[in-house]
Amino acid sequence: MNGAEALLRTAVAAGVDLCLANPGTTEMQLVAALDTVPGLRSVLGLFEGVCTGAADGYARMTRRPALTLLHLGPGFANGIANLHNARRARSPIVNLVGDHASWHLAADAPLTSDIESLARPVSVWVRTSASAKDLARDGAEAIRAALSPPGGVATLIVPQDCAWDPAEGPVRVAPPDAPEPISDAAIEQAAAALRSGENTALFLGGEALGERSLRAAARIVAATGCRALIETLVARLERGGDLPAFERLPYFPEQAREALAPCRHVLLAGTREPVAFFGYRGDSSRLCPDSARIHTLADPGHDVAGALEALVERVGAAAQRNAAPRPARPVRPTGPLDPARLGQALAALQPENAIVVDEAATTGLAYAAFAAGAPRHTVLGLTGGAIGQGLPSALGAALACPDRKVIAFQADGSGMYTVQSLWSMARESVDVVTVVCSNRAYRILQAELARAGIAEPGRNARSLTDLSHPELDWVSLARGLGVPGTRADTADGFCDAFARALAEPGPALIEAVL
Amino acid sequence: MNGAEALLRTAVAAGVDLCLANPGTTEMQLVAALDTVPGLRSVLGLFEGVCTGAADGYARMTRRPALTLLHLGPGFANGIANLHNARRARSPIVNLVGDHASWHLAADAPLTSDIESLARPVSVWVRTSASAKDLARDGAEAIRAALSPPGGVATLIVPQDCAWDPAEGPVRVAPPDAPEPISDAAIEQAAAALRSGENTALFLGGEALGERSLRAAARIVAATGCRALIETLVARLERGGDLPAFERLPYFPEQAREALAPCRHVLLAGTREPVAFFGYRGDSSRLCPDSARIHTLADPGHDVAGALEALVERVGAAAQRNAAPRPARPVRPTGPLDPARLGQALAALQPENAIVVDEAATTGLAYAAFAAGAPRHTVLGLTGGAIGQGLPSALGAALACPDRKVIAFQADGSGMYTVQSLWSMARESVDVVTVVCSNRAYRILQAELARAGIAEPGRNARSLTDLSHPELDWVSLARGLGVPGTRADTADGFCDAFARALAEPGPALIEAVL
Repeated sequence: MNGAEALLRTAVAAGVDLCLANPGTTEMQLVAALDTVPGLRSVLGLFEGVCTGAADGYARMTRRPALTLLHLGPGFANGIANLHNARRARSPIVNLVGDHASWHLAADAPLTSDIESLARPVSVWVRTSASAKDLARDGAEAIRAALSPPGGVATLIVPQDCAWDPAEGPVRVAPPDAPEPISDAAIEQAAAALRSGENTALFLGGEALGERSLRAAARIVAATGCRALIETLVARLERGGDLPAFERLPYFPEQAREALAPCRHVLLAGTREPVAFFGYRGDSSRLCPDSARIHTLADPGHDVAGALEALVERVGAAAQRNAAPRPARPVRPTGPLDPARLGQALAALQPENAIVVDEAATTGLAYAAFAAGAPRHTVLGLTGGAIGQGLPSALGAALACPDRKVIAFQADGSGMYTVQSLWSMARESVDVVTVVCSNRAYRILQAELARAGIAEPGRNARSLTDLSHPELDWVSLARGLGVPGTRADTADGFCDAFARALAEPGPALIEAVL
Repeated sequence: MNGAEALLRTAVAAGVDLCLANPGTTEMQLVAALDTVPGLRSVLGLFEGVCTGAADGYARMTRRPALTLLHLGPGFANGIANLHNARRARSPIVNLVGDHASWHLAADAPLTSDIESLARPVSVWVRTSASAKDLARDGAEAIRAALSPPGGVATLIVPQDCAWDPAEGPVRVAPPDAPEPISDAAIEQAAAALRSGENTALFLGGEALGERSLRAAARIVAATGCRALIETLVARLERGGDLPAFERLPYFPEQAREALAPCRHVLLAGTREPVAFFGYRGDSSRLCPDSARIHTLADPGHDVAGALEALVERVGAAAQRNAAPRPARPVRPTGPLDPARLGQALAALQPENAIVVDEAATTGLAYAAFAAGAPRHTVLGLTGGAIGQGLPSALGAALACPDRKVIAFQADGSGMYTVQSLWSMARESVDVVTVVCSNRAYRILQAELARAGIAEPGRNARSLTDLSHPELDWVSLARGLGVPGTRADTADGFCDAFARALAEPGPALIEAVL
């Protein structure tokens, strides 16, 4: 058995079942081992950002790591942007990055580069294997690191001689670290804030956006009258049906501060204190009022749901139910197509148990409001702000959950970053309906120009935020990549096309012209 | 004047005239300055690899740096693969990478990451500006670093407060370092080898592939009977017409060693000793025979043409002319379309003074042989092995040389990495004819599987090297991105389509089905 086979056997024995690959020459032994080691599905991406984004989507749905298989420094580099999102989502991922044979590195061949320097900014764990005999053990440690709370990206660099030299066999993966235990002092501090009568908000993020946590938070809200707020950029949020629909913290700092202004206490569950997405001139990073006290109920590495449930007990809320009225499901819209009607249409028609990958940027705001009344669903968001996450994540979520419909709600500018994802969707016949919000602009940047005081953008500034010359034709792009597509420019037309696409198995794309 | 304006005025005064941009919120002041500072053409790429690859193509044609304008760590990361190629081509490029305002970094907002760690592997110079007052001076140093021989990638990280705070004005860019002087000892050593009567090869790369150097090498060959060999991966090679057509060192190590086997002396001009592209099991990195003596006539940072001309004088070759017969121009092929006929067709029809960006991978070998008989042209190659360089470089070369026809000779697998380039070609109406070699496979990897001893690839190995399910439809992809496209599957059909595309201004694409 060579190193490559020992490594993959180690991964399969630990429950890893998916490899998202764009390999090259230095990964040929690992490619061959994908056939000699049973148990791994391999999926080809035509660009590495597809592989890493899909691994992120898969991890968010399963909490298990997929492997990526990437080709030296440049191949890894193409995957960094979506690994950055994965890092912010705390998604478990194990990157296998082929490198030159160790004896070949000194020759500084054309593809040689410092892969570790590229990997560190997005990885909780980085190692270059020293020999074939170490490779399986290194892989086991990578898997363990990826799974240890709160989860993260582990990058194992595999010099090619480590893959082809003889190895001793697979290695058992040690259990990941347990979550940090619930802190009784933290529970008591939070309970005291809730009992104080002062304005208090539960700030929920990360694992606190799962069903158990949300139901616990609803009991606390009902019992104490506090508010619950959800972080702006969600890794994975359970929503709709009979789940409580809490307010999302707005994106722009003025609005976020307004939402937080009444707070005297902010109780953090599963996430950190919120900060401004960008720093603006004359502004500050903080969003919570200086007078508010920030209490950490549960860090991302803690048993977050357990902490919220302990707090339910502590404030005597166990018998409470979600008191908020359940929002009505929106009706199918008619008339011209605009962001509001598009969001309404999605929420009106999305099937039970859908996964909605939301990279709709400015167009998505209306949907978020409407979808509180939709059937139960899961939302995956753009955690790290590195655009091009939506289509790959949708692919990965669909690979993780073949029994659920995935809706990729996708801004056009962002979608172009990893448009190659559509080809992998077609190849793997995954159930993803992509809805492209075709407004032919980097609309958020047009807003940001105004915020920067550039009231009358000049020719260059207009040009760098405008996508209308030439117009992107998403139906042709989809056809080029093997996905059936259609275009809609009225609410009715969109609803018809969306309902048809949802009724069919396999991928489809609708260009919603706004 | 704010820092952004001072920086751009510094660049314009130094002769910088192009900015390849994919900006975000942190670059808004730099975007605004593109309008207040006259003299910079700004070109939007829908993905950062388009911007960096275009900057590389522009630099290879002009030897001047373009600016790229990129958005924090993830935006920079998307440009790394083509910066890796640029690094290997020693192309002068100045990256401007926006970062959060310096006071916002401690908040670890979602887009925060270690940009310097990402930048170092591809940059000869990296700096994060400390204040608006430093920004123009830092920019001046970046430009100087990019231009100093042998040229390279300089990366300036611009915290947003450095762009919006007041600055003192532009800074003059100091002249770049002079090339290293010609070494008389090196000339004499090379001359002695040539006089020895032992088998000697001139190994030409980098600047030695320009017209002056090639003509000098031809005189040396004619006078001494030595051979001249060209490095495998060329940054920029002048070719065709009455230029000498030297043999290219083959890609695979066995063939390269066979070509070098007779050598007792190898004289390096403008490049390093050749090494194997990959290390293979049981093999070594070296290609030159152990018994050969390696002499450095001129390093990449030297006055390479001057060194070759000095060697011409030293061996008394000044009166010599290129003795080799001028290859005949190939005729227009007929019959089915295959790689040989495709290469023949390109060489038969390419116009005088074309720029041929060769990322045709396995399909390109036949063309390289035929094109010795083509009219005078320039070849830009894949220097760093990071695929996805062809289309962006073609865009950049066309922006640099609007009076020349650019032919992007593009493998299909590689072309998908930065397919977004076609949109920028359409937007800028550049004269690029893209020829996609549609063999629907990573053909080179199918060869590499066999070389790795995997004679009967399994299902996964076959799947990861095959692009035929679904078939990429390049004509639809081009249409989606605003470029007129057509498909050809016979030699005649291709020749007709190619001649038509060459006769029209603006971009066009031909899918050559192989």
